[in-house]
Amino acid sequence: MTKFMDVHHDMKGITEDQLKAAHRADQAIEREEGVHFERAWADPKSGTVYCLSEGPSADAVKRIHERAGHPTDEIHPVPYTIS
Amino acid sequence: MTKFMDVHHDMKGITEDQLKAAHRADQAIEREEGVHFERAWADPKSGTVYCLSEGPSADAVKRIHERAGHPTDEIHPVPYTIS
Repeated sequence: MTKFMDVHHDMKGITEDQLKAAHRADQAIEREEGVHFERAWADPKSGTVYCLSEGPSADAVKRIHERAGHPTDEIHPVPYTIS
Repeated sequence: MTKFMDVHHDMKGITEDQLKAAHRADQAIEREEGVHFERAWADPKSGTVYCLSEGPSADAVKRIHERAGHPTDEIHPVPYTIS
């Protein structure tokens, strides 16, 4: 399993409730691809959303995001984490 | 205090030890600007590093990164967090 950071750029004006709803939509189906979405951060002004996930591949993460209605092509494995 | 996500794009080949050293360099001086660097994630293949911090302004976070030797202009406030 690998950690991934993905980025969405088209979320201008997103509210906290919309961020929660999007995160829940991912989590509702994530198990079908062996993915887990851990965290998400949103900047409503620039429309940027960052999601931290763990899963078997970037494609698996992409597929969940696509099926949940918020696709992105910007996804990086982040094998090194400091917390 | 606001949370910020900043992104570095020129870190190709970064090792886990180098990521730790960079994070420690930030933390060694962060208090001078009232900033705290919480987490960092690195993708050595694409050279992308994400840093999550908290501080009084994006400029304060920028100044710490600059003084620690790894400047970036890509920094977003992320007022909404799901964890």
